[in-house]
Amino acid sequence: MSQFKTVRGMRDFLPKDAEKIRYVEKIARELAHLYGYEEVITPVVEHYDLLSAKSGEEIRERMYAFSDMGGRRVALRPEFTASIARLIATKMRNAPKPMKLFCAGSLYRYDEPQYGRFREFWQANYELMGSSEPEADMEILTLTNDLIGRLGLRRYWFKIGHMGILRGILSQEGVAEGQQNLIMQLLDKKRWDEALTLARESNVSQNCIATLKKILETKGKDASQVLKTAKRVVADYDDAVAAVENLREILELTAEGNVKFETLVETGFARGFEYYTGIIFELYVPEIEIALGGGGRYDKLIELFGGEPTPAVGVAPGIDRLVLAMDKQKVSLKISEESKVMIIPVDEKLRTKAVELSLTLRKAKIPVEVELMGRKVSKALSDADRRGATHAVIVGPEELKEGKVVLRDMKKREQRPVEIKTLSKEILKDTS
Amino acid sequence: MSQFKTVRGMRDFLPKDAEKIRYVEKIARELAHLYGYEEVITPVVEHYDLLSAKSGEEIRERMYAFSDMGGRRVALRPEFTASIARLIATKMRNAPKPMKLFCAGSLYRYDEPQYGRFREFWQANYELMGSSEPEADMEILTLTNDLIGRLGLRRYWFKIGHMGILRGILSQEGVAEGQQNLIMQLLDKKRWDEALTLARESNVSQNCIATLKKILETKGKDASQVLKTAKRVVADYDDAVAAVENLREILELTAEGNVKFETLVETGFARGFEYYTGIIFELYVPEIEIALGGGGRYDKLIELFGGEPTPAVGVAPGIDRLVLAMDKQKVSLKISEESKVMIIPVDEKLRTKAVELSLTLRKAKIPVEVELMGRKVSKALSDADRRGATHAVIVGPEELKEGKVVLRDMKKREQRPVEIKTLSKEILKDTS
Repeated sequence: MSQFKTVRGMRDFLPKDAEKIRYVEKIARELAHLYGYEEVITPVVEHYDLLSAKSGEEIRERMYAFSDMGGRRVALRPEFTASIARLIATKMRNAPKPMKLFCAGSLYRYDEPQYGRFREFWQANYELMGSSEPEADMEILTLTNDLIGRLGLRRYWFKIGHMGILRGILSQEGVAEGQQNLIMQLLDKKRWDEALTLARESNVSQNCIATLKKILETKGKDASQVLKTAKRVVADYDDAVAAVENLREILELTAEGNVKFETLVETGFARGFEYYTGIIFELYVPEIEIALGGGGRYDKLIELFGGEPTPAVGVAPGIDRLVLAMDKQKVSLKISEESKVMIIPVDEKLRTKAVELSLTLRKAKIPVEVELMGRKVSKALSDADRRGATHAVIVGPEELKEGKVVLRDMKKREQRPVEIKTLSKEILKDTS
Repeated sequence: MSQFKTVRGMRDFLPKDAEKIRYVEKIARELAHLYGYEEVITPVVEHYDLLSAKSGEEIRERMYAFSDMGGRRVALRPEFTASIARLIATKMRNAPKPMKLFCAGSLYRYDEPQYGRFREFWQANYELMGSSEPEADMEILTLTNDLIGRLGLRRYWFKIGHMGILRGILSQEGVAEGQQNLIMQLLDKKRWDEALTLARESNVSQNCIATLKKILETKGKDASQVLKTAKRVVADYDDAVAAVENLREILELTAEGNVKFETLVETGFARGFEYYTGIIFELYVPEIEIALGGGGRYDKLIELFGGEPTPAVGVAPGIDRLVLAMDKQKVSLKISEESKVMIIPVDEKLRTKAVELSLTLRKAKIPVEVELMGRKVSKALSDADRRGATHAVIVGPEELKEGKVVLRDMKKREQRPVEIKTLSKEILKDTS
């Protein structure tokens, strides 16, 4: 049988990389706990109708969709938000507001694999539901910024926009929602000319086209300056003015709260998901072209799924992309050095004694391996070296009679007999 | 739009249950670290050919298999072992032996949903590759027993058998492997009469049928007694005798090593996967009919996938089933009590101050929520109560002038002004 490979676009993470993935997941989970976001777990396999309802054409087309053996049309989730909205609309319908939920896991999209983009990827996900206040939007930005800080990334920025600006203009011009979605998708892919052509075909006014053009050019690092310009540009469109005003308030609150990050405000910014209604943002580092994560406000989705009208805002940081950024910025994981022990019995009869000892050391939280290959001491010692053991414990019949074993410091290449009773203390002393 | 549901056989875990799942996963991961098993992450989606190669007919028929958009025949993994064997056969081909790998994640089988059995489920997985010594089998039993102990389960037993017994008899009788597999599947489902009929149809001797019948009846809690009987029963079949001998040695080593657990040895025990070659076992608690997990030795699989001949043994404890057993045995999670703070600004202008304070407290590792609904203090306080907050911090303009906030003990219903500088200390003092 030939050698098997992973399916195209899917990855294996070998120990060093898997450790990084689990590290970021752990920090993300700790952060959720610190911010009061409770974790939920939803299935990887959901009804296609749920996942496609408001995901946007592009994502819909790239879902892993199939029929299960019972003939149900299902798909692998391309994101978490639809599942969370389903929960809030059904099982958590009566939870007190605001609801704050966290989840983390793997997602699936049949995208063309490219640098940093794979068909199976991992995200953390924070959703804050029930509040339409700007401090809710601010909290999601704050939390995201806090996560990046805790991971140790040094250079990054938030690209920020607001769906209410473009939607406000198009709605006032009478453009139907479906048509608006198509325009947004083109904007998301930076196909501006086609987006404007589509707007023209929707019979919008000359003023609208001129406004859209200016909106697409309005961007910059100085948020208050950009939003001042934007307000002037969209002055004829009330809902768009309100959107600019909302974004200004969120960013002002964030600055006042001493939450500091670099921003790039783009009023013509759109994201792939159709469900966004307010602020939208993405996170970038200079070393990587694609976003590390993104989020925004979606006030209509839960209602659409049959729930109570529930304003909501959330963010989904990409776990494997954050790992990539940490690699690029040479951030080291904050994992404390600790001892690692290899126990080597000098002959077969002492195998069980070695296991007994290993259980005792593990109770003292010391990572321990037992020689399992039936090798001689010298061979087993060089293997212990290769595995990065800090200590070897050699179990021999002579020492054992006196209740002792030989403790070897692998770095110093020194060894001495040690009483079994004090073994764990001696090992911990060496590495403290 | 109608309310959406989860796909049949798939589950949502709401916060209380998700916490338990993540707790068991965390303990399993810590254990892997303590035993020197390094974590790897492999994809949920694998080539169908890989997953079906040695999984056994029943599991093959119940896989979530489909063609992806590129026409590849793929499936959702029903277990981890095939993926790990793939890794060892390819990317980790040259890793020093023994290789010890851990993984944890979701698996998929289109089984009929029943108590404790779902179509998406979670397992931890420990694989020890490169050693054919009985101490390797013993380590896997020891580690499993250690996991159960750390989780706090009180009553449980290992059902133990050895594939070499039945295979040894059938091979010596000239029964082809494919036919053996069919017989094993029937035995796995406890359809003994059909299994014996199939053996008869394979032209085995009268002596063989008589031996098989006796083997199916040879079981009990006293391992040494059961294995003594078994040795006598299979005396005419050399490989079967060697298998009984191997099982005896493993269990004797385990007992000598002071690793204690209840056993039920069944020499006619078979498991669903075709790849097992040596010891097999499953873990049970009295409260639940289905196994909490299982494992065994599989010495041929890695070679089959194009790798070096590599003896291997592993175990896959079911994470959600362990949670179920913990619920049944009323085991409480060892999660330390800690404070939980709600910060409430008395008016809109103090919202940003509340956020600033929250960031400071979280740096001291205190879980903090900020009032985000724009509610009055009294309403926000009763919400804080409902959320189980231990403290409320009320931010008012008067106290703030003096660098203070009001700290309220939610249980005692007492409050006092506290200097912001000492706030985290005061909160930690209350709950230490």
